[in-house]
Amino acid sequence: METAADPRAELLAKYRRGIIQVYTGNGKGKTTAAFGQALRAVGQGLKVCIIQFMKGRKYGEYIAAERLAPELTVHLSGLDSFVMRDNPAPLDIELAQKGLELARAAISSGDYDMVILDEINVALDFKLVSLQEAIELMKNKPAALDVVLTGRYAPPEIIALADTVSEMREIKHHYNAGIKDRAGIEY
Amino acid sequence: METAADPRAELLAKYRRGIIQVYTGNGKGKTTAAFGQALRAVGQGLKVCIIQFMKGRKYGEYIAAERLAPELTVHLSGLDSFVMRDNPAPLDIELAQKGLELARAAISSGDYDMVILDEINVALDFKLVSLQEAIELMKNKPAALDVVLTGRYAPPEIIALADTVSEMREIKHHYNAGIKDRAGIEY
Repeated sequence: METAADPRAELLAKYRRGIIQVYTGNGKGKTTAAFGQALRAVGQGLKVCIIQFMKGRKYGEYIAAERLAPELTVHLSGLDSFVMRDNPAPLDIELAQKGLELARAAISSGDYDMVILDEINVALDFKLVSLQEAIELMKNKPAALDVVLTGRYAPPEIIALADTVSEMREIKHHYNAGIKDRAGIEY
Repeated sequence: METAADPRAELLAKYRRGIIQVYTGNGKGKTTAAFGQALRAVGQGLKVCIIQFMKGRKYGEYIAAERLAPELTVHLSGLDSFVMRDNPAPLDIELAQKGLELARAAISSGDYDMVILDEINVALDFKLVSLQEAIELMKNKPAALDVVLTGRYAPPEIIALADTVSEMREIKHHYNAGIKDRAGIEY
């Protein structure tokens, strides 16, 4: 919550209520929905910061996002390797916690209208970052700030505090037909 | 299918199999997932054409997409007003059919690696365009071309021929809490 002493924050809170969105589920479309939301927001003049947890590679969306700078900023905070759920490497944990620090800084900076925490749900489920800290971050965010959280396994506590939750349900996936991941589709 | 006489098309078909993706369901994230997919594809050097059915307004994603030109092209082919499912205006039908013509031209042109038909599922469900024509279009697309179809009410015939289908299920929506649509979030 904003401090009651800041009249501008109170007005912002009154007239522009930030929305917490969650994209979860096992189907394709979570990260792309978040980047599409960023594209839409940038088109409307908003400033957006994306922090990608558990990713260390410059995916297509990261590369194209440079063309939306300075309104869109993207940080990578992970490794380009698979994280073992029950035995994450110390560096995986360190980078995810660095991601949470970046998130905290972006959320409190006042520099952004929307902060997107890509794959944070997985980082939470894998216990790379503290659920309690993430919840506190959401609860104490500036009232007008929009936040988007993506990734499978969104914890129930995150779903509870979100305004909008979409579950991407896999009805079909081309992987099951033996088609491999490819540039422009998966990354 | 490509004609068997074209060896380049055969090689493309062999090594790059285009994927038909469908984003449907009642939850938020369908159009944004498609635009995020476009952003990812553009970042990987692909050329993308988006045709927006039943939309006549320059949404945020349309405005920001101009910064991704010339790799990304977006066409609007609808009105900025509600279409009555059981009584569409003649102009709604005409514009949707023009959208299908644009789709046909984009798909057969060879100018694009990915063609996105935003909200076409709704246009099909509302019978603004012919399901049979859309199916023929998908079946006869160049083998390497990726296609994305979005919108609620994806017809079963479209789901049947798609490689990947994600259903965006609404778990929660901020509309239900009385929060209205807003620039940067819904448009």
